Amino acid sequence: MDEEFRIANMNWMSYRDRISRTESVVLVPIGSVEQHGPHLPLATDSLIPTAICEHCARHSGALVAPTLSYGARSTPRCGGGQHFCGTTSIDASTLIIQIRDLVREFTRHGVKNLAFVVGHMENTWFVNEACELALRDAKMMGAEPPRMMAVGYWEFLTQKTIDHVFADKFPNWALEHAGIMETSMMLHIHPELVHMDTLIEHGPSRLPVYDMWPYDQSLIPADGVLNTAIGSTSERGKIFFDEFTSSLSAALGREFGR
Amino acid sequence: MDEEFRIANMNWMSYRDRISRTESVVLVPIGSVEQHGPHLPLATDSLIPTAICEHCARHSGALVAPTLSYGARSTPRCGGGQHFCGTTSIDASTLIIQIRDLVREFTRHGVKNLAFVVGHMENTWFVNEACELALRDAKMMGAEPPRMMAVGYWEFLTQKTIDHVFADKFPNWALEHAGIMETSMMLHIHPELVHMDTLIEHGPSRLPVYDMWPYDQSLIPADGVLNTAIGSTSERGKIFFDEFTSSLSAALGREFGR
Amino acid sequence: MDEEFRIANMNWMSYRDRISRTESVVLVPIGSVEQHGPHLPLATDSLIPTAICEHCARHSGALVAPTLSYGARSTPRCGGGQHFCGTTSIDASTLIIQIRDLVREFTRHGVKNLAFVVGHMENTWFVNEACELALRDAKMMGAEPPRMMAVGYWEFLTQKTIDHVFADKFPNWALEHAGIMETSMMLHIHPELVHMDTLIEHGPSRLPVYDMWPYDQSLIPADGVLNTAIGSTSERGKIFFDEFTSSLSAALGREFGR
Amino acid sequence: MDEEFRIANMNWMSYRDRISRTESVVLVPIGSVEQHGPHLPLATDSLIPTAICEHCARHSGALVAPTLSYGARSTPRCGGGQHFCGTTSIDASTLIIQIRDLVREFTRHGVKNLAFVVGHMENTWFVNEACELALRDAKMMGAEPPRMMAVGYWEFLTQKTIDHVFADKFPNWALEHAGIMETSMMLHIHPELVHMDTLIEHGPSRLPVYDMWPYDQSLIPADGVLNTAIGSTSERGKIFFDEFTSSLSAALGREFGR
Amino acid sequence: MDEEFRIANMNWMSYRDRISRTESVVLVPIGSVEQHGPHLPLATDSLIPTAICEHCARHSGALVAPTLSYGARSTPRCGGGQHFCGTTSIDASTLIIQIRDLVREFTRHGVKNLAFVVGHMENTWFVNEACELALRDAKMMGAEPPRMMAVGYWEFLTQKTIDHVFADKFPNWALEHAGIMETSMMLHIHPELVHMDTLIEHGPSRLPVYDMWPYDQSLIPADGVLNTAIGSTSERGKIFFDEFTSSLSAALGREFGR
Amino acid sequence: MDEEFRIANMNWMSYRDRISRTESVVLVPIGSVEQHGPHLPLATDSLIPTAICEHCARHSGALVAPTLSYGARSTPRCGGGQHFCGTTSIDASTLIIQIRDLVREFTRHGVKNLAFVVGHMENTWFVNEACELALRDAKMMGAEPPRMMAVGYWEFLTQKTIDHVFADKFPNWALEHAGIMETSMMLHIHPELVHMDTLIEHGPSRLPVYDMWPYDQSLIPADGVLNTAIGSTSERGKIFFDEFTSSLSAALGREFGR
Repeated sequence: MDEEFRIANMNWMSYRDRISRTESVVLVPIGSVEQHGPHLPLATDSLIPTAICEHCARHSGALVAPTLSYGARSTPRCGGGQHFCGTTSIDASTLIIQIRDLVREFTRHGVKNLAFVVGHMENTWFVNEACELALRDAKMMGAEPPRMMAVGYWEFLTQKTIDHVFADKFPNWALEHAGIMETSMMLHIHPELVHMDTLIEHGPSRLPVYDMWPYDQSLIPADGVLNTAIGSTSERGKIFFDEFTSSLSAALGREFGR
Repeated sequence: MDEEFRIANMNWMSYRDRISRTESVVLVPIGSVEQHGPHLPLATDSLIPTAICEHCARHSGALVAPTLSYGARSTPRCGGGQHFCGTTSIDASTLIIQIRDLVREFTRHGVKNLAFVVGHMENTWFVNEACELALRDAKMMGAEPPRMMAVGYWEFLTQKTIDHVFADKFPNWALEHAGIMETSMMLHIHPELVHMDTLIEHGPSRLPVYDMWPYDQSLIPADGVLNTAIGSTSERGKIFFDEFTSSLSAALGREFGR
Repeated sequence: MDEEFRIANMNWMSYRDRISRTESVVLVPIGSVEQHGPHLPLATDSLIPTAICEHCARHSGALVAPTLSYGARSTPRCGGGQHFCGTTSIDASTLIIQIRDLVREFTRHGVKNLAFVVGHMENTWFVNEACELALRDAKMMGAEPPRMMAVGYWEFLTQKTIDHVFADKFPNWALEHAGIMETSMMLHIHPELVHMDTLIEHGPSRLPVYDMWPYDQSLIPADGVLNTAIGSTSERGKIFFDEFTSSLSAALGREFGR
Repeated sequence: MDEEFRIANMNWMSYRDRISRTESVVLVPIGSVEQHGPHLPLATDSLIPTAICEHCARHSGALVAPTLSYGARSTPRCGGGQHFCGTTSIDASTLIIQIRDLVREFTRHGVKNLAFVVGHMENTWFVNEACELALRDAKMMGAEPPRMMAVGYWEFLTQKTIDHVFADKFPNWALEHAGIMETSMMLHIHPELVHMDTLIEHGPSRLPVYDMWPYDQSLIPADGVLNTAIGSTSERGKIFFDEFTSSLSAALGREFGR
Repeated sequence: MDEEFRIANMNWMSYRDRISRTESVVLVPIGSVEQHGPHLPLATDSLIPTAICEHCARHSGALVAPTLSYGARSTPRCGGGQHFCGTTSIDASTLIIQIRDLVREFTRHGVKNLAFVVGHMENTWFVNEACELALRDAKMMGAEPPRMMAVGYWEFLTQKTIDHVFADKFPNWALEHAGIMETSMMLHIHPELVHMDTLIEHGPSRLPVYDMWPYDQSLIPADGVLNTAIGSTSERGKIFFDEFTSSLSAALGREFGR
Repeated sequence: MDEEFRIANMNWMSYRDRISRTESVVLVPIGSVEQHGPHLPLATDSLIPTAICEHCARHSGALVAPTLSYGARSTPRCGGGQHFCGTTSIDASTLIIQIRDLVREFTRHGVKNLAFVVGHMENTWFVNEACELALRDAKMMGAEPPRMMAVGYWEFLTQKTIDHVFADKFPNWALEHAGIMETSMMLHIHPELVHMDTLIEHGPSRLPVYDMWPYDQSLIPADGVLNTAIGSTSERGKIFFDEFTSSLSAALGREFGR
């Protein structure tokens, strides 16, 4: 398939024709501007889900809406925390209302299926809240909303793949921030934006199981990498990317009948 | 220690005296009204953190504020979902603003340390957002807010205890809803509210790794129990309860200097 | 009747069955955490309506939802004002949205009749606003909301009872804060929480008919009692309690057909 | 004094000079658009406080800001309820934010004293909430807000005057809506807008002590007059008006040092 | 036609009868309290649209609602900016919600046509946003909203009239603030409020095409007049007023079938 | 200069170093997803300001933040209106809060100068409102916000250039939507996204000077082009682009000292 799939680049008539097809799907990547260590760009959490969505769209007829580039606040345990310069976050309520607005518009367009593909863990619960509220909005409007999916792309990773790639050394997802999985993915999709030479070796962060305000910044590595990214390769990145895109495609097919 | 530790039952002068002590701590349990299967009461997620907070307070000089009884929406994967009758939830924004209001008031009182002890997983991220915003509020007021902690009590469970109690059969937390851990705890703290005889055996739910709106209710067991609660005992409950209370007490001591 | 009537303690299936009965009624006590002098606990305004609702429910088949423990700001003339330590209040908008959320949920459950029983005078107008907005919400949802009642329990007191108990010395309601009526009621329902020995005699506050910001705190008695509570007895409390519960029950029967 | 006292009619330089005087006072009338029976205009609740404020300003050097013409919803017991055509109300939150905005602006101007004079009973609690929030806003801005007063003009009526005018037949304030007091006042200040010939005699409304949604409209007289206005005269109106203006002036002098 | 057309002065039954007529129209003037130089009153932007609406209503059977007296913030380029004392503005969101509330009420009344006549350029986009949201609200309520118009009165000025009055020297609208057009209009409708003797001659402001925060106040004339008002006459004012009223009347007739 | 200037692609340490330089500038393009006729892509209003910002940044050391891709509702007169499929808009309040959040974050980072470059006319007033509120936020936080600029790029077009390119046939800006200026610009910067062959000739729209809800869609050309785009060339586009970028650069230099 060679048709344009990025909504940004389509004119309105093409868009209208595309979404009027049986079982049209619109994918919305939701990322962040967040420190990702010295070796990854601030937009890492946007670039990854955008690449995943575009890959799925290219092969399925789905469309990709412009990425929501700014995401919810970074928490110490997931993203190093909000004290880093460069991390540029929005309030949860801002993210929520942005998504509600989009659902209302896609509903007006007649979009039948809508998937939010999250690249930043802290967005997750707020995207879910937004989908609940968007459904309520639609009910109040007397409108037929799209069927909606929300997913953090990393959720598609299977134990089998983890075992294959890491043997038994895979950290938990929170600590994965700017770690081997993200870095490998970026080496696969945007190698020119990764600077492996800047990495320094340090062990994983040891953070308590609770959150504190203010939190102890000394527990967060000064470079913002919660776990080591050493060992990242584009080959490993391709394995992850393939798993995420094929699993997302399968889920879209299963849920949206594509 | 035999002093009253429930703020509800204290008069304002006693409260004032107590929080003016060095390193006073106020604990706020945050629960929900949510279906918990046929065997547990709707307030399970409030009763457990309230009991934990009261136990810690009784032995430490901390105070316990009135429980926030209503919590965020139930998600299919954590609590069975919002289609159950009896589940009585508030919007995330309502929970957030309630907490911001409380922090502002405790700040005015001069409370030095404040801990939100969450009993309902879906509250977690919204409590965190609220703490962030409360800190911002305090900054805008030019006020000195309490040091704050937020924690889901289950986070204190160690692998060692899991192994001890379950061997290798412990499900993930999400599926734990109304399962062995919660039921055992309730058998320990409120046995009169647990009806083990109503339990029917069925395997764990098999839910996808993504969320859907609307979701397929047929994937959720009709009784609301995401995993089996069979095998729950008050003895196991006591082990959990002891771990949670001792770990929370230790954390309070470590962070708040008590 | 011996059935459980507290929603908190019921499981969801029992709750569902109970509210599906003809003319089910749910009662929601709405209180406050507010200074009530040296002799009454901070939760006085929650404890009283909770006791009233539970009494009515025990004898009528109505259900009692978890109390809203935190209420609107204390005004100088009704509750001594917001400068007292211990008074822990929420913004009017927080109270309003909390109630709207509850009405939406009870509507979803199919609750047919809903009564908000207010224990804190300052909540009154905000509860009313919330009911108006909840009705609008329901209209927007295309839902059939419960019939709703809102009442400050003290409104049920008759001149006849006042004359009986006080002869001609009853103060106006605003000044009643922590006074003879509330204190007597508490002596009847929670005597262990009342400390009559801490009372000091002083005349009623003399406050202007207007409100000021900032207000003159010297006009408010330092102990927070706007009028004397001396003369309170549990016998008088029983008279009040009986009047409130029987009048509320009568009103519920008249309006909700029970 | 013959100076212009209506802010609307002043140019900005005159306004600036006036409020820079020692102990400047700005009065803000807050009314409503609400049915007032067949004999009084919809703006009655705006016209009365505006006339009171202008009278006080004319004799004291205070300024009068443009009246807030739209007020909070009409309740059945105070104003007949929201089912009347012509009653044009705003949400409580709209009234509150409007007032907060004004306080912020008057603070910026350097206004030292600010009084909200309410003509519509249902506005009362929301004006109070707004003043609380405005004070918080000012604190957050690091600004010095005006000293503020809020008062319903009717609060200044004394028992002595009631006895003088009515002997013992004065109804309670709520039922006063479009009754003898308001009608007499309007006969005094805007006789051309009063149509006494349209009045029909009917007794006072008998409304329950609680509020219902939906409420029984048959309990409200079809003409919107909650109590009789027969017996209203401009002479009685002048007595009321004189009492309100002299008491308000005295209060302004006492609190604001004028 | 001699009937009362100001809603403020009508009783509710007359209002009800009037809006039930075929093709009733309600006009809502929306102004501001904003500096208008040394020669014009702060309410200029309210007085002009009010006069225009009243003129149209007097001759057409339309009704005029109470003016919204407070408007959106003054921008440097349109109104001199928010640093002037006396300019008393509300947040855009406050203006928007006020208008949404009014539309909801007029919808309830059964008003069929509603026109917002704006006298303050900065209100324009917020009035438009409000109308969009009001339409959405009505859809959610399942209500039939009025047909709505929003217009800045100055938009009706034709090049022909400009040429007639000014030859080729008419400035752009933004710079017109407190200039010849507004001043001439005020000389026509409220000559007693205009003080031509206070005018000083200075050329037009030279402001950049972009906005800055903070902005350079030295670019704004200290008297608040963005362009000269010298040359204003009541005769010119009458020409403008006639054009605005006749064009608005024509538009109302065309769009609302009057 | 060859340094990376897109914040998305920079790591946090580079970003931190760049904004710590004297007089750092961050540019934020604000666009829309809006129909732009059959010949231009939906993201036209984002692509143009992004290209302008990137050009300026490349030559000046400024940084470019991720574009805000979704903008305020399309009005009939500026963008054809909200009835077109594909136009995907957000509420004004959503745009405003998004910008406030960004300013707060850039303030935290220590950004000294911030410019919002608007590509969608309907965003203009809401961006201005946001800047006002962001300044207030900063004041409340006790923070030093960046100096801020907001500008619609088209404002930089001079009459001289219009005369040069169009002689006397240039339409007003509103009608310019998807017209010669935008189309020429797109032919210069993204020729592969422009489809000149789809253009059909039709005269300019004739729209009234007021807005209506609902509006008459038949007044809007069915293809969404408010004025002809025939005559667009990349050469003309380059002239426009050069003027906009050089004028913006000059303004940044003048205001921000670069």
